[in-house]
This record gives sequence, C-alpha cells and structure tokens, in this order.
Amino acid sequence: MRTGASIGRSLGPKLWDDFFKGSRLACARLITLVENFPESVPEIRDKLIPRQKGAIRVGITGPPGVGKSTVTAALARRAVKAGHTVGIIAVDPTSPFTGGAFLGDRVRMQSLIGDPHIFIRSMASRDGHGGLSPSTPYVADVFDAFGMDRIFIETVGVGQAELDVLTCADLIVLVLQPATGDIIQALKAGIIEAADLLLINKSDLSGTESLLESFRFLFEISARPKAIAAPPVLTASALHNKGLDEVYKEVEQLIHGHVESGRIREKKRLRLEGEMKSSVLQDLWGRFSALTNAPEEMRTAAEDLLKNGRSPYPFIRNLCARITMEIRDERTNRKDHG
Amino acid sequence: MRTGASIGRSLGPKLWDDFFKGSRLACARLITLVENFPESVPEIRDKLIPRQKGAIRVGITGPPGVGKSTVTAALARRAVKAGHTVGIIAVDPTSPFTGGAFLGDRVRMQSLIGDPHIFIRSMASRDGHGGLSPSTPYVADVFDAFGMDRIFIETVGVGQAELDVLTCADLIVLVLQPATGDIIQALKAGIIEAADLLLINKSDLSGTESLLESFRFLFEISARPKAIAAPPVLTASALHNKGLDEVYKEVEQLIHGHVESGRIREKKRLRLEGEMKSSVLQDLWGRFSALTNAPEEMRTAAEDLLKNGRSPYPFIRNLCARITMEIRDERTNRKDHG
Repeated sequence: MRTGASIGRSLGPKLWDDFFKGSRLACARLITLVENFPESVPEIRDKLIPRQKGAIRVGITGPPGVGKSTVTAALARRAVKAGHTVGIIAVDPTSPFTGGAFLGDRVRMQSLIGDPHIFIRSMASRDGHGGLSPSTPYVADVFDAFGMDRIFIETVGVGQAELDVLTCADLIVLVLQPATGDIIQALKAGIIEAADLLLINKSDLSGTESLLESFRFLFEISARPKAIAAPPVLTASALHNKGLDEVYKEVEQLIHGHVESGRIREKKRLRLEGEMKSSVLQDLWGRFSALTNAPEEMRTAAEDLLKNGRSPYPFIRNLCARITMEIRDERTNRKDHG
Repeated sequence: MRTGASIGRSLGPKLWDDFFKGSRLACARLITLVENFPESVPEIRDKLIPRQKGAIRVGITGPPGVGKSTVTAALARRAVKAGHTVGIIAVDPTSPFTGGAFLGDRVRMQSLIGDPHIFIRSMASRDGHGGLSPSTPYVADVFDAFGMDRIFIETVGVGQAELDVLTCADLIVLVLQPATGDIIQALKAGIIEAADLLLINKSDLSGTESLLESFRFLFEISARPKAIAAPPVLTASALHNKGLDEVYKEVEQLIHGHVESGRIREKKRLRLEGEMKSSVLQDLWGRFSALTNAPEEMRTAAEDLLKNGRSPYPFIRNLCARITMEIRDERTNRKDHG
C-alpha cells in the first residue's frame, strides 16, 4: 500500500519507537493518522496487530441524555483501581468527552483526563449520520497495541448506530433511564436483544420499578435464542455514585465468562471475517472498475435506462461478464507483450 | 435468473395479464413474490420497469408517536381527491396500517382501506433492526407499474432507518411534534439536512412556537450547502384535520419543482447506479468465492491470524491475487477441455 510522503515521514521508525516505549504523544499521533489517512491503516495495523494483547472492547450505548459518559467514567475509574489500563473512545457528539455537553459534565471528566492509566479520544461521527466513524475499530487497535486492556466505546442514539457498536465491541452495555419511551425504540432497533448488560441509570427517578417490570415481561416473551440467557438488568445512579461498584463487578464477570466460553473469540473472528470480505470486495471493485471504466459506464447506462424505461439487469449481466473477460484479456496482453 | 418451480408457476402469463388489467389481487400476489423470493426480483422487474410511469415516491418519516400514519392517510386522501392513485407502504411496526397501534387509529384507517384508488401494503422490517426491508423499493416498483403515481413510504425511527428511506424516496417529509427532544436525534442522524419538508404535527400542543424557533436558528447556522434552500417548515394537527390542505399543497409544489429542476431524475439515477454497483459486487463475490472456496478459507485464516496475532493484510492481498488467477485459469481450462 502506498502512503503519501507526509504520512510516510510521520510514520517513521521514531514514531513507532516512541509509541512502543509508551509515549502518549506518539499514541495520539498514530490515532490521528488512522483517522485522517485511511490508506495508511493497513501499514499501521501490520505493525500494531502483533503487539496487541486482546484488549476487551466494551460498547456503552443508549439514547442521548441517559448518562452514558458518567457511567463510562465511573467504570473507567474502577477498572484503573483494579489494575487495568483504560482507553475511552467517545463518538457521542453530546458527550462531555467530546466537549459537546454542559460545563458541569466536563468538569467531572477532568479527573480522568489527568490519569496516566486512562487515554481518552473523542471522535467525530464522520459521516454526520450519528454512526460510528469507520476508523473506530482501528483506534481501538491502537489502544490495544499501546497496552490498554479495557477499551470503552461510548456511542449515542437508538438505532443503527448501536448496531455499528455491536460489530466492533466484545461486550455491549445498554444504558437506559426510567420514564422515557426509549425502551420501545431500543427494542425496534434490535439493541436489547444484542445487549450483554442492561443498565437503568438515574434509578433515583420514579419509573424505575415499572421499567424493570417491562424488562421482566420482555424476556418472558422474548425471541432471544434459548442458548443465550436473558441479560442481567442492573440499576444505578451514576451521578450519585450509587450502584456502580455492582455494575463494574458484573461487567468484569461477563468478560470473564465470555472469554472462558470462547464467545469473545468468536465475535473477534466474525469481525475479522467481515473485514476480509469487505476488503476483498473493495479491492476487486477498484481494479475491475478501472479495467472496464465501470463507474462512467454505469452513469451513462443509468441515464439511458431511465430515459427509455428499461430494466437494468441486462446491463448488469453484461458488465459482470465483461469484467471477467477484461481480467482474462489483461493476462493475455501481458503474455503477448511480456 | 432461475426461480423455483413454485414461483415459476405463480409468475405465469395469467398473473401478468391480470396485473396489467388492474387486478388488485394480482398486484398483492406480485408484492408477496417480491417480498418472499428475492431471486425472482430481476425477472419481475424486467417486466415491471417498461410499464412504469415514474411515480413519485414520498418518504414520511419521524420518531414513533408523532402521527406519521395519520399524516400519511391525510395526504393520501387529498391526493386521491386531486385525481391521483396512491400506494402506501408502511414499514413502521407501530403503524396502524400494520396493525400495531391502538384500535382508534386502525378505525380511522378503515375508510382508506376500502378506497379503490388506494393500495396499502404493510411490510415487516425484515432484519428486525428497524430499517427498511430490502424489498421496499421493489414493492414501490410494483405500485408504479400498477399505475399508482403517488407512493407514500411510511417508516419509523430517528436514525439509520430514515437514511434508508432517503435512498428509496424522491422526496422526504420529516414529521416531528413539539416538546420532545426528537429534534436533537434527527439532527444527529442527518435527517433534517436531508428532509425536503419539515412538518410539526400536533401543533395544538404547547411547544410548537419554540420548536419553530429552533428550526429558524438551526437553518441560520446550518451547514446545508448554499445551493439548497432551507426546507419549508409547516405546522398541522392531523388528528383535528388542521393544516393538512397546506401540507398537501406544499408537497405537490415541491414535487413539481423537483421534477422541473431535474432533482428527482438525478435522485433516481443515483439510486440506479448504486443498485448496479451492489449487484455487480454481489455477482462477482458469488462467483469468485465459489471458485476459490473463499468463505471457508477466510474462516480458517481468521482463526489462525487471531491465534498467532498476525495482520490480515497479507492474506487479503493473496486472496485477491488468487481470485484473479482462478478466473484466468478457468478460461484456460475451458479452452483445453472445450
């Protein structure tokens, strides 16, 4: 893979040396490269992956305003106390980590920011659609190779955004709060079925009991595969520092259980296979569309088909056949001229 | 494209004959085939597309509970009155069209169900993730070829689901209601930027003025491209039948404007190009992965790479190269044996 000259310079042996010696500045630089130069990701990951120790990636997700950042901060503090080093990736645009929230929240985060065992990275949601930036899993790779063994990924929304988290997290914590309709949306989005732990935050508010009751009812009627037990439901008040010890303990127990059962390894394998498939497809498309000038052809064909009210399938079949032939001809030509 | 024997029988000349003669039963059957047998879609669309007259597809979207179905019904009634024939596709699982809502709502829909100028189809959200079923645009194709010239697609959620609508609708109406935080979520999901019309329903509730004020502020600071004007913001109370005439008029004016400016044609072209690309990729992947036994290989490689902490890129590059070679060899072999 080629990388631009400026990236080549930044990615010199000095950066790697500093990074593996534990320089936080080098870590931050590497993350910036991963975020801004997708074409440098393979080169970077070639170096990172052999140094990774299999950090556990915990997705913290839920609707805006339920206190995900406070929960994340509380879990991070407890993890550090237990001897872990922690990476936090905040994709939520309203997160105090990303500077989008009230001053009070941001002040509460200050203690974390100074902690040498915690590394916080705020990420823009690049596509502007609330989803995770495509580089999120690679930022987690950087943290992993840097030596973090617990990586918290905080993301917002109820819907597809959480499903993005699912594909890059080993464990999902869904945070809700009482007396909102969010449970309905989370249900629709398929998040509750995927969550490993349900946390009702702000349990000092009224409505907690009835939300707990809804969950009990839900799991009775749930379409969850029998092999997967209903997830634990805990209550906490992160703001008043109540119940968080239990939440942290439960998270660590779940991690332990899923490591033992091989479930986390299975998730990592499926992620890797998905990555392979999309890389191969992207590569094939890049080469074949260059050979056949496909993008321009598709544009012309689309205009023509729309104008004349014709079906796209004959064109699609023809394009597929020609792509195959072009590859063959490319080889023949090379033989002839080589 | 092959289709199963049973589909082959269902898709006989009689069905097509009935369909083009205007049989609602044949239309319903065709939709069922499109929904349940994706492999029959190309054969069906080959017949549909030449008969399509370019129906306008209007996406009605917004959070649960804002009254999207009532708005949809109101617009449908007015469209019929103005001489249009209307197709309604309801993907929202809580929609009264799909039977998921309160009895009162469903009763209000009864008048529509009996109308010969309106065809309603409820669709399950197949993946269970709140998104549109992948067959939604093809159901719209059936309606279009059946002679509907206004197709309303009602979908729920604030987030990725609406973005799905964007890709299959010519015009987007975003429905919100006062005094909820939905505007924040819609903003994050990038929906407001994509909406052609913003409708504040339930305008009899308090908070309407401040929501209008938020929109005004929003459009002042908006990152919307300069070429695209801020969308009109209307208020209505669908339940009390207030303001809907204005909404319908505005929708028709927008349709007229976007047809004139070529924007709708541009959207249709981009959709078609996207469809071509993903069809080609799917076809290539199907054939190449069969040639190289790629899925099994990827699984073994993923296990191996994870165990030994190695980067996937050498494997990916190797697989891409071998896929190309296999295609070439396939041709050589055919020449040798043919």
